[in-house]
Amino acid sequence: MIEAAATKALRDLLGDRLATGRSERDLHGRSETWHAPMPPDAVAYPKDADEVARIVGICARHGVPVIGWGTGTGLEGHAQAPRGGLTVNFRDMAAVLEVMEGDMLVRVQPGVTREALNAELRATGLMFPVDPGANASLGGMASTRASGTTAVRYGTMRDNVRGLELVLPDGRTIRTGTRARKSSAGYDLTALFVGSEGTLGLITELTLRLHPIPEAISAAVCGFRTTDAAISAVTEAMQMGLAPARIEYVDRATVAILNAADAAGLPETPHLLLEFHGSGAGVADEAARFGELAAEHGGSDYRWATRPEERTRLWSMRHRAYHTILASRPGATAIVTDVCVPVTRLGEAIGQAEAEIAASPLAGPILGHVGDGNYHAILLVDRDDPAEIACAKRLSDAMVAHALALGGTATGEHGVGLGKLHLMEAEHGAAWGVMGQIKRALDPEGIMNPGKVIRQN
Amino acid sequence: MIEAAATKALRDLLGDRLATGRSERDLHGRSETWHAPMPPDAVAYPKDADEVARIVGICARHGVPVIGWGTGTGLEGHAQAPRGGLTVNFRDMAAVLEVMEGDMLVRVQPGVTREALNAELRATGLMFPVDPGANASLGGMASTRASGTTAVRYGTMRDNVRGLELVLPDGRTIRTGTRARKSSAGYDLTALFVGSEGTLGLITELTLRLHPIPEAISAAVCGFRTTDAAISAVTEAMQMGLAPARIEYVDRATVAILNAADAAGLPETPHLLLEFHGSGAGVADEAARFGELAAEHGGSDYRWATRPEERTRLWSMRHRAYHTILASRPGATAIVTDVCVPVTRLGEAIGQAEAEIAASPLAGPILGHVGDGNYHAILLVDRDDPAEIACAKRLSDAMVAHALALGGTATGEHGVGLGKLHLMEAEHGAAWGVMGQIKRALDPEGIMNPGKVIRQN
Ligand SMILES: Cc1cc2nc3c(=O)[nH]c(=O)nc-3n(C[C@H](O)[C@H](O)[C@H](O)COP(=O)(O)OP(=O)(O)OC[C@H]3O[C@@H](n4cnc5c(N)ncnc54)[C@H](O)[C@@H]3O)c2cc1C
Ligand SMILES: Cc1cc2nc3c(=O)[nH]c(=O)nc-3n(C[C@H](O)[C@H](O)[C@H](O)COP(=O)(O)OP(=O)(O)OC[C@H]3O[C@@H](n4cnc5c(N)ncnc54)[C@H](O)[C@@H]3O)c2cc1C
Repeated sequence: MIEAAATKALRDLLGDRLATGRSERDLHGRSETWHAPMPPDAVAYPKDADEVARIVGICARHGVPVIGWGTGTGLEGHAQAPRGGLTVNFRDMAAVLEVMEGDMLVRVQPGVTREALNAELRATGLMFPVDPGANASLGGMASTRASGTTAVRYGTMRDNVRGLELVLPDGRTIRTGTRARKSSAGYDLTALFVGSEGTLGLITELTLRLHPIPEAISAAVCGFRTTDAAISAVTEAMQMGLAPARIEYVDRATVAILNAADAAGLPETPHLLLEFHGSGAGVADEAARFGELAAEHGGSDYRWATRPEERTRLWSMRHRAYHTILASRPGATAIVTDVCVPVTRLGEAIGQAEAEIAASPLAGPILGHVGDGNYHAILLVDRDDPAEIACAKRLSDAMVAHALALGGTATGEHGVGLGKLHLMEAEHGAAWGVMGQIKRALDPEGIMNPGKVIRQN
Repeated sequence: MIEAAATKALRDLLGDRLATGRSERDLHGRSETWHAPMPPDAVAYPKDADEVARIVGICARHGVPVIGWGTGTGLEGHAQAPRGGLTVNFRDMAAVLEVMEGDMLVRVQPGVTREALNAELRATGLMFPVDPGANASLGGMASTRASGTTAVRYGTMRDNVRGLELVLPDGRTIRTGTRARKSSAGYDLTALFVGSEGTLGLITELTLRLHPIPEAISAAVCGFRTTDAAISAVTEAMQMGLAPARIEYVDRATVAILNAADAAGLPETPHLLLEFHGSGAGVADEAARFGELAAEHGGSDYRWATRPEERTRLWSMRHRAYHTILASRPGATAIVTDVCVPVTRLGEAIGQAEAEIAASPLAGPILGHVGDGNYHAILLVDRDDPAEIACAKRLSDAMVAHALALGGTATGEHGVGLGKLHLMEAEHGAAWGVMGQIKRALDPEGIMNPGKVIRQN
């Protein structure tokens, strides 16, 4: 519950851009995945950074939890409100503020989505490459250190956020980073706030790196007899210095579902989906070299998609895969794993996961960004069946334990939120305590997205 | 002064690996540049991480300042001891611990130098690309977020450190990062410690990214009539998506010095020195495209160096340039500026710097990593002439003020140390206060490299 004085102060500031009705609170309490609903007490729709600073100031004075909200596509209950409080929805802060074509930078408000940004950029010959599939907000993507299919070439949000404007838990506004390509001027606050999931402050503006739209693009699909063969081709490609823009893996179960739902028409074996970016000659050369590698590993049916429609069809099938898999068990929800391991250990990690899922009563198709060593098992569960939820969590925790033993991480791109909090001690050891020290230094009252990333009392 | 009990505890731990003699203290009090000597009270040579933790534990109990020392090539008085204390020299922690060829990673102790690492890697077909010219230690390079000639393609230490082992100011040991290519598991502590100049803890181990040695390399030299023309060629190359491994600028004054000292035989105009890495076809294609661009901007005498000896000669001349310039005024020392600006503003920034230096009584040849927007004026001063030092500082501060107005940074790669501390408020505003909060949270007694990066009482 927000005390009346705080509600009044927020109401005076925001008028009807403060919502306290049931339906809007419920909308902001939901999760894309299995987490039970946890609505906030109210939702604010600020229209500029100054308003955000005032909102946070009010919440700080009254000890009200503050939770940022981009588009709510986070998979670990990131933007839910386990302690109530105020959700700050950035819907009305969605302007592209400045395109700096020459320096390949853009300044945006946090509510801009990646699709909206790329639409706005189309005329410039530049693009923002980070692509988590969902049409997420850039503020949300920065906050979870998102990546997706193209990170293998263009990097993650860690690599593509040049600077931030932030409102801190005490209401102060700061700017981090510069427009220069690099700096050694003190601690890297930009990197500290990217991936902090709104627990250290709210992002009110981002300066992002852009990349030239490649001269030539070509995509390919290739089937392999085994997962190991597919992964060996990936590992060797990376070692040869090939720089594909995308290398996605889909397992046999995923292919079966895509064939059934999407008429994909693929042989039912593990597949790689690839894309190459570059000059015409460069793309042809890389694609040919990958083709040879694939053949050496028994890859078959290496098919090309150079026409834009074919490519679009391929990637929209890949991007819809999560929902296609969900729909394969009507009414189901998902626990989505997200481990990331050194690429050389990927065959082993996926092999073990497949075996454990096969030995369980659950379906769990696997797909992933294997050029980065990152894959997801979409464990399909009935939200109302505690035994299924428990089984999926057991499978997920076993995958994480295995990934950590291989030198990997519990989460390659989705983040911690509520769902991965119990794994942080195992992953970081004493370093998790250091994260806690930073959290307490910047947010001593613990008002920013409480309960996420760091364990608080 | 270190109190006797602390010296005794250190002596018991280290035996004759604790040095308190004048000459060794003096050696660790010097700076590569104009800063007056500031020796520590003692120098420790630990042999492993466990000893480092014990050393820091002793210093914490007795309030002794602790200063890391790699090879002492930092340019801003980074490793000097303005408050005395203990310098921890990592000379005896210089082992390459593990090469993970398949995952293109290497685990090293902090005292390994970049040349030693690359020598060790030669047989693997992999390389560590970050190249600050000096044969610095990897611990020092991580601590200053170093970069150099190849950052335009391979990134800086920010991009090439995958994980760290650290001893914190209270003696605890933590590990940050994983062997996976990406992670969203909480705050990015690796990025926080990279560039923290030993003010938050000592690095006792690094996991670094490696890159395949390119199949083909070719270098080129090209003269331009004006700085603006050279910089325009650079800007357009970046916008076209060309990815040279090096694009270095040398001004007319630098060329004159190189001609005189090194028989460089170049026309006395601004020049670009370039290198391309890739497949044979890729390199030829990129080089040809750059050649066309250069010609459009009046570039002349675009000369190729494909034979290894020619390339080596070119880059060793470039790497020696700092010392060649120093030697052009016998007995002089240097104040080296390090601003970095958006690439589109580089012509303007260099033009203004050249004009201001020309109007001053000092010589200050300019050279830089212009693909990143980073350049250095080597302001030659007589260490014993306060008027010259003051003049050079005035020129340097003016360049920084101009760079900040253009959206740049006071230091692209050298770091803050003592020499740039007075500029941090102007660059960061309130964000500098946040750096101070983090410093106080992790190092409440202020024992780690006091007086650097953050202002302490
Ligand atoms: C079908 C599907 C596929 C997906 N695939 C991928 C994928 O391939 N790669 C990937 O990385 N992710 C993926 N995701 C996860 C999700 O898209 C990302 O986590 C995304 O970054 C969330 O963005 P959002 O705008 O929806 O943020 P939200 O879910 O609204 O919020 C995410 C977190 O950021 C915080 N936050 C939001 N805005 C701000 C702000 N302005 N300031 C401070 N904190 C803020 C929230 O409090 C919360 O903690 C997928 C999700 C779905 C549903
Ligand atoms: C001729 C010349 C050219 C140069 N060119 C470049 C260039 O192109 N690009 C560039 O980036 N730099 C350049 N530099 C600067 C210098 O080489 C870099 O700053 C380098 O990173 C310093 O490494 P070092 O091992 O000498 O560190 P040191 O000078 O010994 O220390 C640097 C800082 O790191 C700290 N430190 C050292 N080791 C550790 C550790 N293990 N744990 C914690 N803290 C530690 C020290 O306390 C100090 O604050 C140049 C220097 C010279 C002399």
